[in-house]
Amino acid sequence: MRIFNKITDIKAEIKKIKSSGRSVGLVPTMGFLHEGHMSLVRESVKNNDVTVVSIFVNPTQFGPTEDLAAYPRDFESDCALLEKNNADIIFYPEPSEMYGEGFCTKVELSGITEVLCGITRPVHFAGVATVVTKLFNIVNPDRAYFGSKDYQQLQVIKRMIKDLNMDVDVVGMPIIRENDGLALSSRNVYLKGDERTSALALSGSFKLVENLLREGVEDTKTIKEKVADFILSHPHTRIDYIETVHPETLVSVDSADTDFVMALAVYVGKARLIDNRYFEVHHV
Amino acid sequence: MRIFNKITDIKAEIKKIKSSGRSVGLVPTMGFLHEGHMSLVRESVKNNDVTVVSIFVNPTQFGPTEDLAAYPRDFESDCALLEKNNADIIFYPEPSEMYGEGFCTKVELSGITEVLCGITRPVHFAGVATVVTKLFNIVNPDRAYFGSKDYQQLQVIKRMIKDLNMDVDVVGMPIIRENDGLALSSRNVYLKGDERTSALALSGSFKLVENLLREGVEDTKTIKEKVADFILSHPHTRIDYIETVHPETLVSVDSADTDFVMALAVYVGKARLIDNRYFEVHHV
Repeated sequence: MRIFNKITDIKAEIKKIKSSGRSVGLVPTMGFLHEGHMSLVRESVKNNDVTVVSIFVNPTQFGPTEDLAAYPRDFESDCALLEKNNADIIFYPEPSEMYGEGFCTKVELSGITEVLCGITRPVHFAGVATVVTKLFNIVNPDRAYFGSKDYQQLQVIKRMIKDLNMDVDVVGMPIIRENDGLALSSRNVYLKGDERTSALALSGSFKLVENLLREGVEDTKTIKEKVADFILSHPHTRIDYIETVHPETLVSVDSADTDFVMALAVYVGKARLIDNRYFEVHHV
Repeated sequence: MRIFNKITDIKAEIKKIKSSGRSVGLVPTMGFLHEGHMSLVRESVKNNDVTVVSIFVNPTQFGPTEDLAAYPRDFESDCALLEKNNADIIFYPEPSEMYGEGFCTKVELSGITEVLCGITRPVHFAGVATVVTKLFNIVNPDRAYFGSKDYQQLQVIKRMIKDLNMDVDVVGMPIIRENDGLALSSRNVYLKGDERTSALALSGSFKLVENLLREGVEDTKTIKEKVADFILSHPHTRIDYIETVHPETLVSVDSADTDFVMALAVYVGKARLIDNRYFEVHHV
């Protein structure tokens, strides 16, 4: 496993790899890796000759009041996990390497980035789209792997690739959960004491929705109200949003008579957690 | 020479070309081609195995009150010129092919796009940066050729390539002029009667600046005032801007004791004309 810090160096390595006809898979991450990330790495290793994992806590996708400085980091442990899971290359640049003097370019999507997390995180998705565009241009991957926990991010990236005619196959991978249902997240480390139990409110909500749908409840307003009550019955919780949206456009869905995604963002103590589930209504 | 209208088709053709190890040059145009464009095509033909010319009057780079509908078009004449100059491929898509349903992505630069033409054309450069990004991803060129008449556009594209880590060599080519000095432009067709003579005010300004610099005038405010007087002494002229700027950042330059670019935008009748010249002060 090789580690690159400089764009020029990894570009030269990628050029060699591609010109020898080998395929490249990219797993973009912010580090502090867990089994969710590893499921992406293993899928990439299975389907590509070379797997590149980028580790970059991208400052431009954090708002001024968000947790950039506090965001957990552990490069040594990340390397050990990646070595064990047969990643080939780590790209680990400094912010100054990614955003040099005079940097002034932004990739921005409208609409799809202005709902859900986009409401309270107005600069987030432009930061994501811009850094992912850069990573795609640096690593030139055949395939790129993203988790479905960041459901909106996955849809934003798919839309961007389509709109800008990029040549990357995006692979969205299932959410990986603890045995009790909590979706894996680097931010779970923020959960203290009984907040860990309260955090189960998110995945528990989807069970509740399943039951409501089985009972024939179709009005998503009612569904969302019942989910809100359920979540708030757990201590330390504060709701950012509870939404039922179209799986691709993320436009709000009023009636559960069509496929939809329920997306949640909930503060549990200091941790802002997100989770989601795709409901194929006729197969519940 | 082959003509492609569909993104999928030209992408497949480019894939074949690149996988056989041949290099690709791209000349992005809005059609109504003249000798300025042909100088780019010939340079591309000289240095690449395959030359692709895109002809696309990009709606997103026109403001609501600008000349999108009136913009001159002549596809047959363009084809004849390109055939004669040995272009290999024309990419000639419909707007609906470039901007499909749900399109919502934009590449945007700050600062460098907010001066000169950016002041009166606030959406222009996002339109340019976005369509050029798309063309780069569709055509995957080794080199892309742009004229220097659109000096700001050339700097915006260079900056975007650097910021987004794109793998394209941009080649900026000199302005091509009529014998009397008028910079070639598709928009020169708008000039009626004695407006054609007044249009010489732009290139004539640079002779005036040369003389002022030779006389030792360094204050760019004085220089710009004299240029304004000179231009307005021609009938049918209205000044959009007269600026002296840093050649790369386009930041305004106060004193001509360093290299600078003089950039002009002047209405002559209905035609909005631009022109510029790079002054290497110590070599005037």
